[in-house]
Amino acid sequence: MFYHSQKLINPIVPDEPDPSAANALQEGLGGQFGEMRTMMQFLFQSFNFRGNATPYMDLIQGVGIEEISHVELITKTISQLLDGSPRYQGDQYEAPGKGGDAALDMAKEQKNPHHYIMGAQSALPVDAAGNPWSGSYVHNHGNLVLDLMDNLVLEATGRLQKCRIYEMSTNKTLRATVAFLIVRDEAHQAAFAKALEKLGVDWGKVLPVPKFDPSQFPEVKRLLDLGLHREQYTFRLDGSMMEQIFSGPSPFNDGTQLTTLTEPRESFLVPQMPERPEEFAPGLDAELQALADAFTEFKESGGKIDQNIGMNGNKEE
Amino acid sequence: MFYHSQKLINPIVPDEPDPSAANALQEGLGGQFGEMRTMMQFLFQSFNFRGNATPYMDLIQGVGIEEISHVELITKTISQLLDGSPRYQGDQYEAPGKGGDAALDMAKEQKNPHHYIMGAQSALPVDAAGNPWSGSYVHNHGNLVLDLMDNLVLEATGRLQKCRIYEMSTNKTLRATVAFLIVRDEAHQAAFAKALEKLGVDWGKVLPVPKFDPSQFPEVKRLLDLGLHREQYTFRLDGSMMEQIFSGPSPFNDGTQLTTLTEPRESFLVPQMPERPEEFAPGLDAELQALADAFTEFKESGGKIDQNIGMNGNKEE
Amino acid sequence: MFYHSQKLINPIVPDEPDPSAANALQEGLGGQFGEMRTMMQFLFQSFNFRGNATPYMDLIQGVGIEEISHVELITKTISQLLDGSPRYQGDQYEAPGKGGDAALDMAKEQKNPHHYIMGAQSALPVDAAGNPWSGSYVHNHGNLVLDLMDNLVLEATGRLQKCRIYEMSTNKTLRATVAFLIVRDEAHQAAFAKALEKLGVDWGKVLPVPKFDPSQFPEVKRLLDLGLHREQYTFRLDGSMMEQIFSGPSPFNDGTQLTTLTEPRESFLVPQMPERPEEFAPGLDAELQALADAFTEFKESGGKIDQNIGMNGNKEE
Amino acid sequence: MFYHSQKLINPIVPDEPDPSAANALQEGLGGQFGEMRTMMQFLFQSFNFRGNATPYMDLIQGVGIEEISHVELITKTISQLLDGSPRYQGDQYEAPGKGGDAALDMAKEQKNPHHYIMGAQSALPVDAAGNPWSGSYVHNHGNLVLDLMDNLVLEATGRLQKCRIYEMSTNKTLRATVAFLIVRDEAHQAAFAKALEKLGVDWGKVLPVPKFDPSQFPEVKRLLDLGLHREQYTFRLDGSMMEQIFSGPSPFNDGTQLTTLTEPRESFLVPQMPERPEEFAPGLDAELQALADAFTEFKESGGKIDQNIGMNGNKEE
Amino acid sequence: MFYHSQKLINPIVPDEPDPSAANALQEGLGGQFGEMRTMMQFLFQSFNFRGNATPYMDLIQGVGIEEISHVELITKTISQLLDGSPRYQGDQYEAPGKGGDAALDMAKEQKNPHHYIMGAQSALPVDAAGNPWSGSYVHNHGNLVLDLMDNLVLEATGRLQKCRIYEMSTNKTLRATVAFLIVRDEAHQAAFAKALEKLGVDWGKVLPVPKFDPSQFPEVKRLLDLGLHREQYTFRLDGSMMEQIFSGPSPFNDGTQLTTLTEPRESFLVPQMPERPEEFAPGLDAELQALADAFTEFKESGGKIDQNIGMNGNKEE
Amino acid sequence: MFYHSQKLINPIVPDEPDPSAANALQEGLGGQFGEMRTMMQFLFQSFNFRGNATPYMDLIQGVGIEEISHVELITKTISQLLDGSPRYQGDQYEAPGKGGDAALDMAKEQKNPHHYIMGAQSALPVDAAGNPWSGSYVHNHGNLVLDLMDNLVLEATGRLQKCRIYEMSTNKTLRATVAFLIVRDEAHQAAFAKALEKLGVDWGKVLPVPKFDPSQFPEVKRLLDLGLHREQYTFRLDGSMMEQIFSGPSPFNDGTQLTTLTEPRESFLVPQMPERPEEFAPGLDAELQALADAFTEFKESGGKIDQNIGMNGNKEE
Repeated sequence: MFYHSQKLINPIVPDEPDPSAANALQEGLGGQFGEMRTMMQFLFQSFNFRGNATPYMDLIQGVGIEEISHVELITKTISQLLDGSPRYQGDQYEAPGKGGDAALDMAKEQKNPHHYIMGAQSALPVDAAGNPWSGSYVHNHGNLVLDLMDNLVLEATGRLQKCRIYEMSTNKTLRATVAFLIVRDEAHQAAFAKALEKLGVDWGKVLPVPKFDPSQFPEVKRLLDLGLHREQYTFRLDGSMMEQIFSGPSPFNDGTQLTTLTEPRESFLVPQMPERPEEFAPGLDAELQALADAFTEFKESGGKIDQNIGMNGNKEE
Repeated sequence: MFYHSQKLINPIVPDEPDPSAANALQEGLGGQFGEMRTMMQFLFQSFNFRGNATPYMDLIQGVGIEEISHVELITKTISQLLDGSPRYQGDQYEAPGKGGDAALDMAKEQKNPHHYIMGAQSALPVDAAGNPWSGSYVHNHGNLVLDLMDNLVLEATGRLQKCRIYEMSTNKTLRATVAFLIVRDEAHQAAFAKALEKLGVDWGKVLPVPKFDPSQFPEVKRLLDLGLHREQYTFRLDGSMMEQIFSGPSPFNDGTQLTTLTEPRESFLVPQMPERPEEFAPGLDAELQALADAFTEFKESGGKIDQNIGMNGNKEE
Repeated sequence: MFYHSQKLINPIVPDEPDPSAANALQEGLGGQFGEMRTMMQFLFQSFNFRGNATPYMDLIQGVGIEEISHVELITKTISQLLDGSPRYQGDQYEAPGKGGDAALDMAKEQKNPHHYIMGAQSALPVDAAGNPWSGSYVHNHGNLVLDLMDNLVLEATGRLQKCRIYEMSTNKTLRATVAFLIVRDEAHQAAFAKALEKLGVDWGKVLPVPKFDPSQFPEVKRLLDLGLHREQYTFRLDGSMMEQIFSGPSPFNDGTQLTTLTEPRESFLVPQMPERPEEFAPGLDAELQALADAFTEFKESGGKIDQNIGMNGNKEE
Repeated sequence: MFYHSQKLINPIVPDEPDPSAANALQEGLGGQFGEMRTMMQFLFQSFNFRGNATPYMDLIQGVGIEEISHVELITKTISQLLDGSPRYQGDQYEAPGKGGDAALDMAKEQKNPHHYIMGAQSALPVDAAGNPWSGSYVHNHGNLVLDLMDNLVLEATGRLQKCRIYEMSTNKTLRATVAFLIVRDEAHQAAFAKALEKLGVDWGKVLPVPKFDPSQFPEVKRLLDLGLHREQYTFRLDGSMMEQIFSGPSPFNDGTQLTTLTEPRESFLVPQMPERPEEFAPGLDAELQALADAFTEFKESGGKIDQNIGMNGNKEE
Repeated sequence: MFYHSQKLINPIVPDEPDPSAANALQEGLGGQFGEMRTMMQFLFQSFNFRGNATPYMDLIQGVGIEEISHVELITKTISQLLDGSPRYQGDQYEAPGKGGDAALDMAKEQKNPHHYIMGAQSALPVDAAGNPWSGSYVHNHGNLVLDLMDNLVLEATGRLQKCRIYEMSTNKTLRATVAFLIVRDEAHQAAFAKALEKLGVDWGKVLPVPKFDPSQFPEVKRLLDLGLHREQYTFRLDGSMMEQIFSGPSPFNDGTQLTTLTEPRESFLVPQMPERPEEFAPGLDAELQALADAFTEFKESGGKIDQNIGMNGNKEE
Repeated sequence: MFYHSQKLINPIVPDEPDPSAANALQEGLGGQFGEMRTMMQFLFQSFNFRGNATPYMDLIQGVGIEEISHVELITKTISQLLDGSPRYQGDQYEAPGKGGDAALDMAKEQKNPHHYIMGAQSALPVDAAGNPWSGSYVHNHGNLVLDLMDNLVLEATGRLQKCRIYEMSTNKTLRATVAFLIVRDEAHQAAFAKALEKLGVDWGKVLPVPKFDPSQFPEVKRLLDLGLHREQYTFRLDGSMMEQIFSGPSPFNDGTQLTTLTEPRESFLVPQMPERPEEFAPGLDAELQALADAFTEFKESGGKIDQNIGMNGNKEE
């Protein structure tokens, strides 16, 4: 069973909207090697896991749970990059183009017009060429060695593509998220490489892919200094055996050490997205808004937390 | 951020393997109106939510989080239905077909041979006709009224299709899961219908879809008696405003009442799937198995739980 | 602008339900060379037609209009073949499987379970392997010679595939419709071959494809005797120049003559499909049915026809 | 059976070519919520209709027939927007780029190069991101309440997307067509909402989607003043029961009244598209053109109309 | 530039037709991890190769050239398994079903009816679930280490799936080809594993995937005894540097040695497929056959071979 | 069995990079009527060929073998057009964007960002709108007349589209390759038209499609003067009967003659692509490069050619 807290795994850094950057980042969300695939591939592998090698299952599933939070993060980032893009600087319309104004006139020239037609300037489950995500991307061979190797290739490709995307824009919103994902994809490469090392492989110096000095990228360097590229999280409310694998020397043979934590040391506020009347989003007129407001005013009373969720109070069969 | 506990939202009931039933159930997982879509559609809508009508966002997201657990449940159910199906009764092979035996001879006649070729007798992200899940299934219009209506149609279709699948097999494994999903899809119809009722719609007697007496289905009746069709869960570790909407009289105008809980009253053990040597799953030979076992033996020590996860210990920026 | 009369272009002949035959016939509806494609390809070509060679446009469009009626016919045929197939002989259920009966137990074994899960035993826009129809099937090159050659290949493939499907079943419902389509595909081959003959091609003896004596198929022979393989219809309410091309000797060099008519000499009743409670179709309970019946009782008064539709009364700009 | 008259349901208003606007409008033709889907969805639902609630069938089918004319209209509009776009102002080439000129040099930069490579500057069955239309878009659940709700969501999405597209360009060719579709999608929302109202739903004030004052859009205002948003047409040559449902007060609870007609009060000339030698369209050289002209010169004699088509002269079986 | 000789890389062993086995084998041809993908992936990687590490390029391309011959072999095998399947034992029809006989009556029940409707009992570019092959399967990252790892995973998956397919049938036609592919996929795993070993990886004992004793499969054992699992071929008419990598000890650390040859030691006759009149294949009637025969009679004179092809006689620029 | 020599069938002419031109050219590679389809369609038809009309099989297969070399040529051309495009003139980076430079900043604006994200500035198996190639493009009807007609339409469409692409750019790299393909597609039209002529068709003056004077295109004129539009090659190492068909007067009735050769009179050097560090391609760091170099230094010794390959030395079974 899955749970959620209204926190992000990395902060959304504000900057100008940039629809082309948003489109490039779609590859990291809905592309063949993006976060929707890693999430689905690792969850399917863990749900369909055979045999009693539980630490391997826990490792695969732990990364999979993290990937849901990556989908959340990257979705928010794309939306931030798109938000207000018809007029840069985030100018607000109070109503759809009055008197026939072309409020969205720049939209038809953007890389993926679906960002403005299908959605209201927000993320889509598609790649940077506009192709929808496909279930055929999910590889779950059922053979442990092969699944681990496939996962390693997947994370290596993820890191490679994100390094390329990093170089495509200096937008701070994009780079903050991409830098985080570069670092985490390195950690995930370490996770699957270590699992294979435990089965006898010595990776020499070929990992991580791509081979280069990532501290050239300043946003990446900050996170490397924090050690995020050698940490892994279980996100498990009732314990995990991930640490049996993800600990000790890095499989990259570079003298670093791996650490398993229950969850990241920090979490971050979820930004709220403004209304976009020119997109009819959310599109409540005064009458409907009054009805909606009736519930929102009790907002503060909604903050009561059940501290014991997921730990107890459940009767097991 | 997302978390997990190694529990199922409904139990897996044992029965004979039945690959055709498994294939029909794939529609509920990877079909156009299956759980992968509800999960992705509601998560995308909540991540891309605009405006300050937080209870609506919390309602949509809360259902979305539950759907991840439905994906987990239905995946496990399909795998159970497929497991051991080359020889009914789950006979075990100790090695791939020796001397050229056709251990998987019945597999090529099954509805979706991919269950045996691509995966090791386990669930796939495809529908009952073998088509892979597509990102184009996810509808996120950005208009609140429309998104709610679309969600209602989606849950109504989900319940209709699962009622049809229920009638396709008497297999207990299939029916236990399908009955649970019929009941939960009714609760989710109530959730989105109620949200629209709050905006002024009176549904009269047209809901839920399909209109019939579901207590004819015994497995469904048991869950209706427990009231699961009128409950909704937040699955939120740090509070939710869902209850502002999901409470009071049912929008079906049938005299029942809606209740919001933090999580289901019960949760259930996750069954472990056996090895299937004829599928090379997990496919560790003696040498590799010995290496893998080295970590698994410390299993008990892995059970340490961080009781405070997601509640505190995070430094917010 | 398009119009409709509640008539079929060929009768639906009753016989036993046969879901496998229905599935094979899906190729003729939603397959790459099926009626959905011919309809869309010819309509797109006529809407996008360039230049002043109007008789060619009228010929292409005329065939396109007929194809909509073919989609209607083949859809009705597939539905007839599926209807009642859970219990052959069309036994009726009065409610979904009571007490947990598996009313649709045979459905999960059928060629395309979507016929029972997504639809209520009726036609789908997919092919015989379950793949959805794709817009990429539509070829509209914009070059007249090439479009005519492409259309000829399309109709030739249509006839070839339907000849193969004819041989797959002796079911009378299937064969009546398939025989009609074999004959009409021959007429359409003649249409496009004649258009190319007018531009200078002599087809010798290679047409129609496939070359064989179709009078071996008794249902086909009856239609050949009526001359339907050498007739073409304009279906145009305000005149057409199709006859400038489709007249005179057949381009098959077999001594026959081509004839253009406004519409077919005969049309046929549209059968009404019964309720299927086990499919929740149409799924109105007693209360909703009473509301629906309130309008249906005025049925006779609905029969008033505007005799002049499409002929006059329109003010042109 | 289907018929056609060479008239358009709305006029094509001339303006400059605008390939980006044409590409945005592709969403309205071949998009997931475009006219190809509404046409196919409503036709499939009417062909597969179960039970005796004929007015509902007639309503669904009547809208479906209109949608074929919408496909015709939007196709013509896209072609008009593309026509002559290599050189704005519609400059004509008399031959493909002589001496190696790059006559189509701007084409490779346009949103969808297929408009120039696959077709000859004309509409394609794809969406605004270049994805081909898919049969999986067609929803035909077989359950009447659900099909009506699905259709309502579909028309609501259609109107939402067209309102957004309206705001993307001030091009008169685009806006004339889009304004018409905005108004007709409102009428179609009224049709399906009214059908559900007849079954007991009170829509309050949530409809139509999106909620805003559409008279802000001048081209829309003109059509609202004509009342086109509250009219529905049967397009049936032999009578229809649509009016049993589509009459009386609007389901939007705004005091307006619904009216059913046989066909629109006005129809409009179909513009002829010029040759585009740089696209080899139609690509007849002098010799072939002479052959083609031989038939076209008899043009006037082709205008003979069979006034009685579809009304009589058919022998029913 | 590519060349061909009319020889097969492995013999087609005759046995009864078996359409289900043919369908399972489609996975090895048009599946996500089948021969069409390996062929295209390796050719694209070699055509797009960057840098001067020629032996790596030659290795990748050499495997890619072999894969074309695998596509040839597996296509021929599928066709052999399908041929004559309407009546087992390969009974011949002399004409399509006379008098309305259902010559292909069993076809509509087969796993993929397209084998009989679209093709004439022969191979299709689809997988075992009927999904068409997709260009998205081709991975060409441009990063050498990653491409090699991806190729290794691909070959490992190929071998895993073929081992499963081997166990699905005792048909000799299927097993002869599958056994050959199991052995060659092991050789290809060795090729890419060795290339990575040269870059520093020590694979320990995890390879080849799957780990098991393949000599349990008798048809495989025969080929292992011939050493085909440790040979690689350049298929290059003008030299190759493949051997720089593919030589010396096997990367599987099992004491075996790798050998590079120009081409396989043996090649085999290409079987000719008989006519299938019930499929209208090739469908020449007496008149057309006479025309076709006019050329075939000169068959012997066609056998003149240009011994020097590809070696000389080409003027290089 | 297939063989290769490291030569190109036409030279790569150097010019500036032009990513838009590269994207347009993708249609000729991975489009519905591009070289990947012709290659696969003709190979499938030849592998699945039925009956004893060997010259027809040899003709179809011969064209198919040439198409593999076209895939090679067009892939190399696209890569050349993309190479170095982040900075026109092919400026080299020595490392990925140092200090956070946006080395690939223009990439996100290009027609298909996949050229920079998925691949390292090189060709992809997709069309000009970014859709991946599909196996459904391959038509293999099994009926000889129909397959020949389909092939003729395919080659006619290929030539039409390439003529349009020629007009889209004056880039010499693009035009050299496109001109060659225009000429070869004319030869291939001649091949299939001649095969049908042998079966009795007289094509008059409608071919080749499109009808125009191609010598207007200077690069095309040069190749026409060399006669490449009337030559066909067998590429067969052990003889072919293609010449039985491809000889004598052109089926275009223009007084020219057809000639069959074993292979083209000229072949051309394969250009080597440089490293692109900003794409991490090939991405070997100093340490890995040293390992790779260890093999490359023996380059000259790798050039030993087995002169007798494919001719002899094979033991036939």
